[in-house]
Amino acid sequence: MTSEYVHGYTAQEATRLVDQASTLTELLHCDTAYPAGSLVLEAGCGVGAQTVTLAARSPQATFVSVDVSPASLRRAQAQVEEAGLRNVTFQEADIFSLPFSETRFDHAFVCFVLEHLARPEKALAEVRRVVKPGGTLTVIEGDHGSAYFHPDSEFARRAIQCLVNLQRHAGGDALIGRRLYPLLVQAGVREVRVSPRIVYVDASRPALVDGFIRKTFTAMVEGVGNQAISQGLIEAESWRKGIRDLYRTAEADGTFCYTFFKAIGLK
Amino acid sequence: MTSEYVHGYTAQEATRLVDQASTLTELLHCDTAYPAGSLVLEAGCGVGAQTVTLAARSPQATFVSVDVSPASLRRAQAQVEEAGLRNVTFQEADIFSLPFSETRFDHAFVCFVLEHLARPEKALAEVRRVVKPGGTLTVIEGDHGSAYFHPDSEFARRAIQCLVNLQRHAGGDALIGRRLYPLLVQAGVREVRVSPRIVYVDASRPALVDGFIRKTFTAMVEGVGNQAISQGLIEAESWRKGIRDLYRTAEADGTFCYTFFKAIGLK
Repeated sequence: MTSEYVHGYTAQEATRLVDQASTLTELLHCDTAYPAGSLVLEAGCGVGAQTVTLAARSPQATFVSVDVSPASLRRAQAQVEEAGLRNVTFQEADIFSLPFSETRFDHAFVCFVLEHLARPEKALAEVRRVVKPGGTLTVIEGDHGSAYFHPDSEFARRAIQCLVNLQRHAGGDALIGRRLYPLLVQAGVREVRVSPRIVYVDASRPALVDGFIRKTFTAMVEGVGNQAISQGLIEAESWRKGIRDLYRTAEADGTFCYTFFKAIGLK
Repeated sequence: MTSEYVHGYTAQEATRLVDQASTLTELLHCDTAYPAGSLVLEAGCGVGAQTVTLAARSPQATFVSVDVSPASLRRAQAQVEEAGLRNVTFQEADIFSLPFSETRFDHAFVCFVLEHLARPEKALAEVRRVVKPGGTLTVIEGDHGSAYFHPDSEFARRAIQCLVNLQRHAGGDALIGRRLYPLLVQAGVREVRVSPRIVYVDASRPALVDGFIRKTFTAMVEGVGNQAISQGLIEAESWRKGIRDLYRTAEADGTFCYTFFKAIGLK
């Protein structure tokens, strides 16, 4: 399944993902804390962008963070060590075939993983398998179709659409946030509650102007420029205008909206 | 300015707007209550969809609700009387030229009005003129570009775009929600804070499935069908598919998102 990823595997990307985690930590994690003594699976920890937050917010819980990429696991481990956290162990594993017995974990957490997978419902079913009955599954995903902004720009919308198309070509779904509810229900998760987490940015929120519009969202779109142009998804000049117009939304009269979706349900 | 409206002037529309107000009351009004003794302008009350809620939530405040349409004012007045409220007076007035002295009001409230106007910043400046220094201006608008759903559908997106285009042809802006911050700043409003209010709907929220997807949003889009087709904005068959696909999102595996924007600032 490793070939299905379109981002996350360069050093610059790793930095961006960590920056993103800092900016959005409160929005995404504010209602996640696990009880003392619980054993929690983080499935698809990547470079550890969420792992440090997860582990720090639940210091009395123990986390097993797995990923299919040894390189990502090494980065994640380094981050956790740097943060002085001792409640995480890392393990190489494929989310479609987890090396754990049924009901091994009290809870599971999956963040920014399903968007990359061709069969997210299968991954969810496998994560559910290793959770005890009554345990929670928490899933967080973005949705690039939720991005809109002022000034509006057709070029910017086309640039974002390139990212969506590239992710689709790679087998993923950049619009998966809106699908979390049916996906979890399909995977057998009960009592699913989905809550959207909207990032709204205007000039009165300068940290988000820089941290989200520039360094998270536009940086992410910018990161696929060469791929999008070389694959003929867009002409170089239109791409340049699209990126310019995304940065334009970070000026004093600009605004930007993006929505993450967080789903919580029970096995 | 009356020619700038694209909806709100038929009996069916009036019913829809009132239904919409009931479904969304808590989301939009939860943080609006005016102190005892204050005098509040509701500029552009229309058929009174918000007036009853406003007045009921602030029983010790007095409201002056104005609109440019005498027919709408009569409907609004009937609703307020039916609700047994005695703290509202109605007056015919043009939001661009209010018949009030400077600093007449303690506060002002404007909801679902600016979207219809070619010069919303001028209307806001006029509303601001009649508010006392230190008084609040509250503005609520939707943004049809914030609508997305599962299953995604190009036909549904095109049908929504017809509504956006019709509103634009009439001089309005159906994407105005995202612009509230710069509009209020431009009108001289201070300390503007905008908060998005997202309506997220899935099968676990049946009241919203019916009340919002079917009876509010899709009903609104459906309402401009004849206009859109007769003006050649879309072929009848595509329109039919678009409306069908919007209703499709109300089924058990569907989801729907729409965001309103609420801005509050000071004179």
